[in-house]
Parts: sequence; C-alpha cells; structure tokens
Amino acid sequence: MRYAVLGTGVVGRTIAGKLVSLGHEVVIGTRDVEATLARTEPDAYGNPPIAQWLEGHAQIRLMPFADAAAFGEAVVNTTAGTGSLMALEAAGRDNLAGKVLLDVANPLDFSQGMPPSLSPVNTDSLGEQIQRAFPETKVVKTLNTMNARVMVDPSRVAGEHNVFVSGNDAEAKKLVTERLVEFGWPRESVIDLGDISSARGTEMLLPVWLRLWGTLGHADFNFHIAGARTGT
Amino acid sequence: MRYAVLGTGVVGRTIAGKLVSLGHEVVIGTRDVEATLARTEPDAYGNPPIAQWLEGHAQIRLMPFADAAAFGEAVVNTTAGTGSLMALEAAGRDNLAGKVLLDVANPLDFSQGMPPSLSPVNTDSLGEQIQRAFPETKVVKTLNTMNARVMVDPSRVAGEHNVFVSGNDAEAKKLVTERLVEFGWPRESVIDLGDISSARGTEMLLPVWLRLWGTLGHADFNFHIAGARTGT
Repeated sequence: MRYAVLGTGVVGRTIAGKLVSLGHEVVIGTRDVEATLARTEPDAYGNPPIAQWLEGHAQIRLMPFADAAAFGEAVVNTTAGTGSLMALEAAGRDNLAGKVLLDVANPLDFSQGMPPSLSPVNTDSLGEQIQRAFPETKVVKTLNTMNARVMVDPSRVAGEHNVFVSGNDAEAKKLVTERLVEFGWPRESVIDLGDISSARGTEMLLPVWLRLWGTLGHADFNFHIAGARTGT
Repeated sequence: MRYAVLGTGVVGRTIAGKLVSLGHEVVIGTRDVEATLARTEPDAYGNPPIAQWLEGHAQIRLMPFADAAAFGEAVVNTTAGTGSLMALEAAGRDNLAGKVLLDVANPLDFSQGMPPSLSPVNTDSLGEQIQRAFPETKVVKTLNTMNARVMVDPSRVAGEHNVFVSGNDAEAKKLVTERLVEFGWPRESVIDLGDISSARGTEMLLPVWLRLWGTLGHADFNFHIAGARTGT
C-alpha cells in the first residue's frame, strides 16, 4: 500500500522506515523540501538531519505535503501537534478526501516552557479538530501514547501492553489495526476506545507519560490496561 | 492511627471501611450530619443511604467536617472534586495543619452533562489547588486513578498494576505508601511520580478511564506501566 508520512521528525522517520521494511511504498511530506534538506544540524534530541537519514533510506522520497498526500492511499500525521492543522491544509483537502489518516500527533504546546501543556484539551482534542476540518477523511487516532521506537517495535517493552485506536469509521480502524499487527502488536493488545472524541482521553495521557519518562529515566515503557479482558 | 475520611460517597465508605478493618480509628466527615443522615434514597449509583451503611459499621462515627478533621491524625479527601476546596475550608485550616492529606478526589465537572470535563486541568490540578490553599498540610495525591473497590483490594485486577503517589513531602509519601501496602498493594507497584504538580498527570487519566469503563463494561481494571522496571 502507498503511504504518505507527513512530518520529518523522529516519529515520522521511525514509522516511514517500518512501513518500507514491511514492503509498503512510502513518501515523506514536508512544507518546504529545499529548506528541510538544507538542515545540517542534529535536532534538539540529537537526531541527524533528515538529508543524512534519507541517504540510508533510498526507497523513501521527500516531497511537499500536497504531493505526498496525493501519492498516499493512506496518510500518517506525525507533524508537531500545534502545526498539524496547517500541515494538513497544505496537504490539501482533495488529496486527503476519502483516505484513512492515522493521527499520531499530540497537541503539545512548548511555548510556555517545560512541561508543555496540551492545546486543545479536555473538551476537545487534536484528533477531533482534524476530523472536523476534514470531514471526508477517516481520522484514526493511534500510537500517540508511547515513544516512537515502541510504536514500531512493541517487544521493546516486556509483558502485555496496549495501543489505543479512536475513530468514527469502523473500516478505517480495521485497516489501522492490520498495520498495528504488522508492526508487531498482538491483535488483542489493540483497544478500540470508540469514536474520535475518545482521542481526548489518549492525548490527555501525555502529561503522565512525560512525568513517567522523567521518573523512570527511559522511554521503553507503555500503558497496559490490567484487567481489560476480565469482562470478555 | 486516627483517620478522618471526608465525604460520605462510595469512595469514602470504601476507604473508611478498609481502614477500620485494618485496626485504625476512623470517623467520616460531612457538611451537615443531620441532613446527611436524613437521606433515605439510594444515590445515583444505587448505593444505600449512609445511615443504613453506618448501621453495619458501628465503629465509624459521622461528624461535621471540622470535628472529623480535628479528630484525625491524617485526613482522606473523598469529597466530590468540584466541592473539595469548600469542604476543606469547612474542615478548617488549623485542623488540617501539619497533617498528611490523602487526596483521592478528581475535579470532574458534570454540570455540562456527560462526559464530565476536568476543572482545573492541564496547567493546574485539584491536588495543587489544595496544596496551595493549605500550605501547612502535606497533600499526597493517590488512588484517584481507579475504581473504589480496586483501591482497597488491588487483587480484584489480575496481574501487575500500579498506584501513583504525588506530593511535595517525602515523609508524607512514605506514610501513604505504608497505608497502600496495608491495603494490599505490592510495594513495587507504588510509583512515586514526584511533586504535587504531577497530580495533573494522574487527574488527566480520568477521561481515558471513563472511556475504558464504557468500552470494557466493568470497573475492575487499572493502569499498569509496562516496562517501568526495565531501567532499574
């Protein structure tokens, strides 16, 4: 299947690399290809510039948001949450219409320093904002509750743990679940929380995730809902 | 030890009953004893009126917030989150000074219907509001991320799962941890998230908890942080 991954950060790279390794065709979308490729410094987390990363991933082409979205049969949003709506506008309504959009972004606002706050939060979510702005797109919020490496290699975390899916379209959630299973998630570890408004709940996991990251000193952990299968 | 449990709902009753069964002296505080005892209808969840419950718990006395807080060497806040600050004002600053306050409440606002929203949220928490309002009290946020029955009987949920503590005072968190161990929590299941501002994270677990409750159809589940011990 053809995937457009929007965003050139570590989450986008990690998911793009995994999709390619599974045999999918993948392009990465960015606002300004020239400017993105001109970066020569590592990012704030020490990741190498994307130009260097792309040298090791020759199958993956970098292109403007709109071209990437037009190419993809499905789209993955890994842009910074506070810029996601603008990135998706640039990708283009028509290029997104009728497609499944995996929304992995969290609307973390770092403008007031650390810790970041969530915006929107509580009575709205980024997942819902995107679904409202692109009603013809099938938005599925998923994978936003863990570190990028765990997303594509759940075995990094010992024992049972879970990944959530939220979305209004049952077929879209099925397609996303198949990708998650390909990524290595046991089928029974995927928890369907319901419609896209349940993205409020998963986006609001970020503050405790960030605290746990600090407390534990590593990112190879994840939420497990103990007792989830008692009732089944 | 002498405990004052503030609040007559199912959380307060459950914790009060457990503390008594462990040999602690317990009183329950309420705003207006006469009015509370006059209730003859089950609550919205079908729990019997407190007068009936007290008949089966003869060791537990019901008294006004201030008398209860004066009696307790430690205090447990199980009042409805949106009314907690008023309840604690009624309990009295002097009656709370120097004491450990286990804050189990969540600031869920049901005034706009279901699902409830959190207020405060994101950049503040009820735990912090209480700590700011009562600086001489040692506030420890805990047990607010699960059903009341799980709080005092963690074995209801199969497998490993966690309880969080947030607070500024290390000795207070130690005392609370000893109570949690008495309640049946394995010591290693208690995760110290840091200072009271980390209560933002645990209070913000409520929206996904409520979604899971609906999805799973039962409340005998809890958050487990898989991989938490990888780094140790």
